[in-house]
Amino acid sequence: MTASLTSGRPLGVAAIGYAFMGKAHSNAWRNVASFFDVPAFEQKVLVGRDALAVAEAAAKYGWAESATDWRSVISRDDIDIVDICAPGWMHAEIALEALAAGKHVLVEKPLANTLEEAELMASAAASARGRGVQSMIGFNYRRVPALALARELIAEGRLGTVRHVRAAYLQDWLSDVETPMSWRLRKETAGSGALGDIASHAIDQVQHLTGQTVTEVTGTLRTFVAERPGAAGLEKVTVDDAAWATLGLTGGVSASVEASRVATGQKNSLKIEIYGSLGSLTFDLENLNELGFLDATVPVREQGFRRILVNEPEHPYAAAWWPQGHIIGWEHTFTHQIRDFLLAVRDGSEPSPSFDDGLQIQRVLAAVEESARNRSTVTEVRERVAVS
Amino acid sequence: MTASLTSGRPLGVAAIGYAFMGKAHSNAWRNVASFFDVPAFEQKVLVGRDALAVAEAAAKYGWAESATDWRSVISRDDIDIVDICAPGWMHAEIALEALAAGKHVLVEKPLANTLEEAELMASAAASARGRGVQSMIGFNYRRVPALALARELIAEGRLGTVRHVRAAYLQDWLSDVETPMSWRLRKETAGSGALGDIASHAIDQVQHLTGQTVTEVTGTLRTFVAERPGAAGLEKVTVDDAAWATLGLTGGVSASVEASRVATGQKNSLKIEIYGSLGSLTFDLENLNELGFLDATVPVREQGFRRILVNEPEHPYAAAWWPQGHIIGWEHTFTHQIRDFLLAVRDGSEPSPSFDDGLQIQRVLAAVEESARNRSTVTEVRERVAVS
Amino acid sequence: MTASLTSGRPLGVAAIGYAFMGKAHSNAWRNVASFFDVPAFEQKVLVGRDALAVAEAAAKYGWAESATDWRSVISRDDIDIVDICAPGWMHAEIALEALAAGKHVLVEKPLANTLEEAELMASAAASARGRGVQSMIGFNYRRVPALALARELIAEGRLGTVRHVRAAYLQDWLSDVETPMSWRLRKETAGSGALGDIASHAIDQVQHLTGQTVTEVTGTLRTFVAERPGAAGLEKVTVDDAAWATLGLTGGVSASVEASRVATGQKNSLKIEIYGSLGSLTFDLENLNELGFLDATVPVREQGFRRILVNEPEHPYAAAWWPQGHIIGWEHTFTHQIRDFLLAVRDGSEPSPSFDDGLQIQRVLAAVEESARNRSTVTEVRERVAVS
Amino acid sequence: MTASLTSGRPLGVAAIGYAFMGKAHSNAWRNVASFFDVPAFEQKVLVGRDALAVAEAAAKYGWAESATDWRSVISRDDIDIVDICAPGWMHAEIALEALAAGKHVLVEKPLANTLEEAELMASAAASARGRGVQSMIGFNYRRVPALALARELIAEGRLGTVRHVRAAYLQDWLSDVETPMSWRLRKETAGSGALGDIASHAIDQVQHLTGQTVTEVTGTLRTFVAERPGAAGLEKVTVDDAAWATLGLTGGVSASVEASRVATGQKNSLKIEIYGSLGSLTFDLENLNELGFLDATVPVREQGFRRILVNEPEHPYAAAWWPQGHIIGWEHTFTHQIRDFLLAVRDGSEPSPSFDDGLQIQRVLAAVEESARNRSTVTEVRERVAVS
Repeated sequence: MTASLTSGRPLGVAAIGYAFMGKAHSNAWRNVASFFDVPAFEQKVLVGRDALAVAEAAAKYGWAESATDWRSVISRDDIDIVDICAPGWMHAEIALEALAAGKHVLVEKPLANTLEEAELMASAAASARGRGVQSMIGFNYRRVPALALARELIAEGRLGTVRHVRAAYLQDWLSDVETPMSWRLRKETAGSGALGDIASHAIDQVQHLTGQTVTEVTGTLRTFVAERPGAAGLEKVTVDDAAWATLGLTGGVSASVEASRVATGQKNSLKIEIYGSLGSLTFDLENLNELGFLDATVPVREQGFRRILVNEPEHPYAAAWWPQGHIIGWEHTFTHQIRDFLLAVRDGSEPSPSFDDGLQIQRVLAAVEESARNRSTVTEVRERVAVS
Repeated sequence: MTASLTSGRPLGVAAIGYAFMGKAHSNAWRNVASFFDVPAFEQKVLVGRDALAVAEAAAKYGWAESATDWRSVISRDDIDIVDICAPGWMHAEIALEALAAGKHVLVEKPLANTLEEAELMASAAASARGRGVQSMIGFNYRRVPALALARELIAEGRLGTVRHVRAAYLQDWLSDVETPMSWRLRKETAGSGALGDIASHAIDQVQHLTGQTVTEVTGTLRTFVAERPGAAGLEKVTVDDAAWATLGLTGGVSASVEASRVATGQKNSLKIEIYGSLGSLTFDLENLNELGFLDATVPVREQGFRRILVNEPEHPYAAAWWPQGHIIGWEHTFTHQIRDFLLAVRDGSEPSPSFDDGLQIQRVLAAVEESARNRSTVTEVRERVAVS
Repeated sequence: MTASLTSGRPLGVAAIGYAFMGKAHSNAWRNVASFFDVPAFEQKVLVGRDALAVAEAAAKYGWAESATDWRSVISRDDIDIVDICAPGWMHAEIALEALAAGKHVLVEKPLANTLEEAELMASAAASARGRGVQSMIGFNYRRVPALALARELIAEGRLGTVRHVRAAYLQDWLSDVETPMSWRLRKETAGSGALGDIASHAIDQVQHLTGQTVTEVTGTLRTFVAERPGAAGLEKVTVDDAAWATLGLTGGVSASVEASRVATGQKNSLKIEIYGSLGSLTFDLENLNELGFLDATVPVREQGFRRILVNEPEHPYAAAWWPQGHIIGWEHTFTHQIRDFLLAVRDGSEPSPSFDDGLQIQRVLAAVEESARNRSTVTEVRERVAVS
Repeated sequence: MTASLTSGRPLGVAAIGYAFMGKAHSNAWRNVASFFDVPAFEQKVLVGRDALAVAEAAAKYGWAESATDWRSVISRDDIDIVDICAPGWMHAEIALEALAAGKHVLVEKPLANTLEEAELMASAAASARGRGVQSMIGFNYRRVPALALARELIAEGRLGTVRHVRAAYLQDWLSDVETPMSWRLRKETAGSGALGDIASHAIDQVQHLTGQTVTEVTGTLRTFVAERPGAAGLEKVTVDDAAWATLGLTGGVSASVEASRVATGQKNSLKIEIYGSLGSLTFDLENLNELGFLDATVPVREQGFRRILVNEPEHPYAAAWWPQGHIIGWEHTFTHQIRDFLLAVRDGSEPSPSFDDGLQIQRVLAAVEESARNRSTVTEVRERVAVS
């Protein structure tokens, strides 16, 4: 953002959505400047459909105003950044309009519910970027300090040649057959189930950590609880409860990805294991301050997985917070995300992950669905375009 | 706080100190109302000695103003609450004046550096309480959800008769002999070393979790690195690097307490194990979202320590934050503390832990020192008064 | 074994093979009667190709004699049991001859290197069983007390409906590209790589624990290190270093299986996670005395994975060993296997796992290879027969 | 043992006692030669009071004969080694007689129930050693590979200056108040409770690992369950259920030792943590194949406790067993002990730990009792002699 655009005033921020993600993003906006040096900004307006509820949320979460019409907010001159926390089916429409209006856009994952929408968004983002307008997708786990450290170690060659990755994102909030029907369990509103919601995070990590891109996909989907109680009796669940995929990547890495919302007892466990010729890494989101690291170049006699508590000033993002050993929580990843987004806006550099990254994930997700449907491997994932 | 006192306006808050603890408390004040229903308040003023630095901190941490003279701040009519985050040797003077001025007081632990000061403070707090003025000491780990759950389970009798407790608070920031001299390593400024700084937390937990009071103390103190580099060459370290105590409590519990700042590799590990006739609990502050629980009343065949991820809506404080499995950080304990303090102020109920609780901890700390000096057990800890 | 067969004398045992598996089986034979009540037997003869080496091994491992010709040993009247620890390509020939000679046969896994051999063996075993001659395949991990307990809990319905299983067998002895070529890395001698050697254990557990049979297989194979130093320079590795499979089972369970010999830092880690509607189990062979169990029927507030130390008298096999908490080692699983085999021989009951079970595993392995080759899912695994 | 003593025949071994320890020692004798190169020996005779029971045990555990009169066994010419697994109160009498008869002696810990007996035994051992007769006390945990590796690392200076040690031996077999009275709970037969039985192991490790000797002791003892059901109603428990000690050692190390038989849920958990200026080690007997190691000389960014799986050929004792990652059990420590004892007998070198080591432990145990009684620190532990 050039100075002329904002005439030296603080950046004006609007957020759309005040549910789970809106709460998490608001928390990040409210706190980021207390811990990081970021350009000046103001939490201008929080947007939601229910006027009373959004007004209350705005007051609670630190926004100066609330509004119900996102279009009119986007058109305001004092708004420079639009943070889209609305459900996936609304992403494309809002993002396209915001980018067209010259607003920097941060959008929650997944980029969109369909490949077509995702392609439109990536295209619009590329065009907007030519005009100095930035965009970013919220794969916030890239900002877990332990995973950021993992990426550094891999990039430095500490693992040697990475051979295979095991990634699983396990939750259990659908284990109970009495858990009722919701928009998240219908294909038309949610796009997919565990696949788009959480496997997407795992797939993003596989690519981000290795620096490679998925080219081949063999996938399987399952819905274990086919019907759930809805307003009008039992309704059919039309998305997956669990997903499996075996991935081939550009640089020769193989990866297994598994996602489940019926993994009883696993609350929010994104487990990642990365095996290289010279070392390995392990991670679990339920203990997100820790990174397991095995350095196979030390003598065998003293080799073993280390539990690195990623809270030292030497670690990514950690110096901003508390002294060593004073752990941070899940929400801090959003604060890091806002920080990096704001710096990119200030510097005019492209934020990462981009809408293109988001589109690539969508292609992988679509390939998993196609593979599961056809019961065969999908190759040439990168070249895939939406069926028009 | 009766309505008449504040005439319906939000409570005015002043915080004194903007270093580590000031930052942590500020964070709690800035966020508590976003997550919990608390009475209205305003972050009025942050107080520190360096005008420029405190002004910068105030802006960063969400305070409306900054100031350098705590006395004048305390005397302001629009200040209702004084949050003392200054070093221990300043606690007594500030707290006494604030209480005398009718301000509710929250003070960081330890209550004071000497038993005499602690007694004066407890006495002033008792007297203030008669006038509706509340006071509280910041043993924030009582507000770790896992430890709050531990206390609930013990109170419900789930452990049966508690027999013994193992508590250790291990850090390593003094492991390196090159770590320089500081005020924390001089008896005249710090009072004591690992003993007062961290063993105090462990002792508070022993008492709080069991609901019992220490009556007997056998203690040992060690300074492993006797001299450290200071401004003028090597200086003598006059506090302990590590402390050990065996405690007897009113209800028959025995406890071992250990604290070290040279436990290489342990970053901020407050480990607690509680053994009862029907069950046991384990905890480690480096994984503060987890509580280990063994229920010895289930069949032996399926007994084992459970790792309870204390993030469910059913758990203390947890419903306010994020969905299950989305862990919180160390700083959240301060937010819980402010929440409970504000509710007590609103309701006119006595906050816990009280200055009396803080005084009792000081007595135990003094008994550890006396026992270490005399190499014999100190009994009748509760009756101890300061040597005048 | 009817009394008339052995005329009251102890059962005579011959073992074929004295390498890794021969050593492990010998240890079991030498110790089983010291811990369990088993029919009387004698360690008669150990068979191997190198006369000197096998004589030395026999003396060391407790065998009365040694021999180099397995055929003549099998034909001896004083031999009642033949324990085949030779490499996989020899299994069929020896087993068929032993069964024909009326000897009870225990054979190491995998049953054979090819599906054809496995079918012949299963057929011969069925026929022999009609004549009172028993046979068993050595999937020894069924006798890990923790896994035996897991099976019990599942059979009792403690997990409710099992939905999905995650199984991985991870080793790293091929991580180093300098590890030389060997018979285990050639298809003609080893049949397959990680797939047959270790994924077979994982697949056996998936079926055994759930009580269901694999019907659908989607598989992938990879050889990360394509050439290795041999006697005459670099030689081509013709088996897989790693294998992945997604399995569908008769009762609706889905399972993911992964095996790797290049999972740097994982030494012998068979990890199993089983997710059901009412509970879950976790296991890792590197901590084989432990079973993780989450009982989702207890109140959410106190749910968590329990670490059950499976060393209580109430646990399978455990009463025979040491008091609670005194852990056993990997080798003990073979002792349990011999114990169960001897009891089945005594009682005339069919030992488990049978050659049919071994054949079924071979079919799944073959389906993984076919699926990997064709890049599509293989269905109707049970009906598959060898291509003749 | 000079060749002339045994005239080239295998060493003859007699074991006295066939309960828990007799079973464990027998297992070691039965297996040691299958894994290690040791001088030839024969399991000649097992001695016990009940003729029938000991005959059965002898048959089961691999002894050629059984006997009921230990004196006559000791006097046999074909017995060269006497392994004393009888209860502690019998150690002195048997050991003294065996040494006098020129037999090598291995005795279970504790050396004796009283300091007087221990001194007599140490004196007799010193005198016998002059005649080429060896003696050893069975602190078998010195032969846990992980603890042997720990000692190596410390001796190599990998921890720098060791500062403090935390050792705890926790069991729970007395948690239940209904657990009946037994000889182990009476002072006259058992000497002490948790102190002598298990704290002794912890104290031995503290000294052995650091290479230092205890000089100062501050101790506390507790009996939580004062009475237990006996044959004739409730009987008074006259030994401790739990013990605590703070130790000072010759080289400046401080150590805390805790032992409990009422630590509900802890089955056989000897936990040891060793903190040095350059690194730290952690260990738990319930996972005895693992050693935790933190090397503080690597960059902070990648520091962390490593879980070393002590199963590599590079590790103490491990090459004799199974390939990497195939864990061993608790009983293997006895096999290592017999191996080292046999090698010392063969080589005429002094086995370790010696009776003098055992006596030193007794002095520390006595000092704990004295300190607990007098409620003050005992100094000059090394110089202590039995009160005559």
